[in-house]
Amino acid sequence: MKKTTLPLPLGFRASGVHAGLKANGKLDMGFLYSARPAVWAGMVTKNALRSAPARRTEKLLKGRKPLRAVVVNTKYANDLTGRQGYKDVEDTAVWAAQLLKLSPWEVLVHSTGVIGVPVPRPKIKKGVRMGVLSLSSLGGENFSHAILTTDLTTKTSARPLASGGRPAWLMGFAKGSGMIHPNLATMLVYLLTDATLSRDLLGRALREAVETSFNRITVDGDTSPSDSVVLLANGAAGAKPIIRPGSDYRAFVQALKAVCLDLAQDVIRDGEGATKFVTVTVQGAKKESEALLAAKAVAHSPLVKTAIFGADPNWGRILTAVGYSGASVDEFKVKVSIGGYALYDGAPKRGWSREKLKKILSQKNVEIVVDLRLGKGKTTVYTCDLTDGYIDINGRYTT
Amino acid sequence: MKKTTLPLPLGFRASGVHAGLKANGKLDMGFLYSARPAVWAGMVTKNALRSAPARRTEKLLKGRKPLRAVVVNTKYANDLTGRQGYKDVEDTAVWAAQLLKLSPWEVLVHSTGVIGVPVPRPKIKKGVRMGVLSLSSLGGENFSHAILTTDLTTKTSARPLASGGRPAWLMGFAKGSGMIHPNLATMLVYLLTDATLSRDLLGRALREAVETSFNRITVDGDTSPSDSVVLLANGAAGAKPIIRPGSDYRAFVQALKAVCLDLAQDVIRDGEGATKFVTVTVQGAKKESEALLAAKAVAHSPLVKTAIFGADPNWGRILTAVGYSGASVDEFKVKVSIGGYALYDGAPKRGWSREKLKKILSQKNVEIVVDLRLGKGKTTVYTCDLTDGYIDINGRYTT
Repeated sequence: MKKTTLPLPLGFRASGVHAGLKANGKLDMGFLYSARPAVWAGMVTKNALRSAPARRTEKLLKGRKPLRAVVVNTKYANDLTGRQGYKDVEDTAVWAAQLLKLSPWEVLVHSTGVIGVPVPRPKIKKGVRMGVLSLSSLGGENFSHAILTTDLTTKTSARPLASGGRPAWLMGFAKGSGMIHPNLATMLVYLLTDATLSRDLLGRALREAVETSFNRITVDGDTSPSDSVVLLANGAAGAKPIIRPGSDYRAFVQALKAVCLDLAQDVIRDGEGATKFVTVTVQGAKKESEALLAAKAVAHSPLVKTAIFGADPNWGRILTAVGYSGASVDEFKVKVSIGGYALYDGAPKRGWSREKLKKILSQKNVEIVVDLRLGKGKTTVYTCDLTDGYIDINGRYTT
Repeated sequence: MKKTTLPLPLGFRASGVHAGLKANGKLDMGFLYSARPAVWAGMVTKNALRSAPARRTEKLLKGRKPLRAVVVNTKYANDLTGRQGYKDVEDTAVWAAQLLKLSPWEVLVHSTGVIGVPVPRPKIKKGVRMGVLSLSSLGGENFSHAILTTDLTTKTSARPLASGGRPAWLMGFAKGSGMIHPNLATMLVYLLTDATLSRDLLGRALREAVETSFNRITVDGDTSPSDSVVLLANGAAGAKPIIRPGSDYRAFVQALKAVCLDLAQDVIRDGEGATKFVTVTVQGAKKESEALLAAKAVAHSPLVKTAIFGADPNWGRILTAVGYSGASVDEFKVKVSIGGYALYDGAPKRGWSREKLKKILSQKNVEIVVDLRLGKGKTTVYTCDLTDGYIDINGRYTT
């Protein structure tokens, strides 16, 4: 469910401002605010050199205290910026907290952009002031623009929640189009709801939803040092609190999964230089973990991704990737189809047509299914093609 | 040591013919022959869907019997071709054996090219006849051309061996420029020597040399189902046999490592679409295995490789890759330099110049050094940049 006008859940406000970090007057800092303390859960990149903001996010998560605001700056990742970077992120939280009359630990600060360059403190400070001043219940769209870097499109999704008769609302924002890989990659995701959940259930729901969405996408296999996904629940809808894993919780997880999958797929559709959306399903694996190994190998293979870009009917590369993935595979059992067209079934299918496959690969959505026929493990991973556009974007990112 | 005219070691003959597999009269089948039974060692790709020729190579290796001939066809990998593929490779060995008056198990058959398409038997059979007829001690250069696929250049290297006073000779041929990744990738390597070694020492020498050469290069991270490296020693030089791991053996290993490193670096220089040769050295790691994890992550990162292509002074991507590699790293200890220019030392170096770094990245050879300063683990990995040429080559490989 997509909206051009983005209704925020009750009690949330948002804004996006141009703080002068990006050129040409583009929105470059985003702000979220909750009128009520929001219970929250989050997941942070596993990169060992994660950024100062990512480390601060981890620290706040451990503190288990409610959150009130989020500040996001683009252009600078504030990663590998030495001890000064830690001071900069802390000060940014302090500046926002002072203006909003909060404690600094109630303010999350995220950064995305170039690594190893300190943030320009005066511009950030000015941006924080402007952002706080322009917070509004109509600010979602500006926020969705203000958190982008190489993204070409904003990414939002929402679902209604019916919990205990009173309607609640869940909405999510995402940013990211490169350095995307399972285990979170240059991606910032903000999920807001006015439902009421316990902190533990919120965390559990987030882990479940991330596993089947953001951990199932890959653009280039690079795992960024900045990524974070956070989920804030402020209870402003006044709906029945979800404190046990019953049917209300299941309904919430279902909505959360749907929003996360929408956002994850949007990230892939907006993959750097991408021209195609690729779905890789591996089934019949000995176990699910092997299905995941195989699907990720296929989705991550530059040879598969360039062949799809060029609509080159070179399906052998798919099985090559399965072959080195570490998953169990038998060449006389495995089946491969693309777009429903069977190409290999223990041996190449007799009379498969290069022209027909080329036509299938020329479509905007390419669906690869590999059936290992060894068990019941199954999973789906999403990726995009690898194009000269990717090379072009990343060969001149900082310049 | 490079030669345009390639002297084969004594007792070896070679040829390259046009069997009509490739268009435009290009050489497409290569042949090697040893007048004397050659003790041999080999390593085969670990891809679980390795090709029929690769599996037959493994079988022959286990048989531990001497080898007399090698037949290589290009254009078709004979991988994922069903049971017929196994019959085709066996028949090819039989055809060559009959003409050379050998047993089929004395003939190695290798294939490289497109996956999943059966070899054209009549053309292969005719090619075998032509190849056997044209075997000659001057055939090395034709062989070096005949085994190529997307390669732009032939790859050969040689070293003299002094073992027991009598001179011997070691020479190697390689083929490969895409699907290149540690653990062998679309790469065929033939190492020939007229020295005399025991089978066990030959195998040990090969493993040592491959580990520091072919297992230290990456083009795109795809591991091919066809790769093989073989080393044949026919003893025709009449030099003192090397049967113990003493100084003669060490000298042999040194020469073998040098030849393998030459060939491995040539593969990288000829990487699909490559414009630059990149050396990634990681030192100061807790242990060597961690140095290797980190170096491979950097060498394999599409973001690092596109930045080098575009001479984009975006050194943060190097540390990002180290960060997700799994190696231990401390942001306040690690040091990074490119081309000897220090960029980060626990924090970004003050006043590093984007223009200076851009100039360094614009050179044909780019040398990245990461010092983790946590221990003594050290290794070097070789790669190339990721360019629009790679996309172009691989988007239309079979078409």
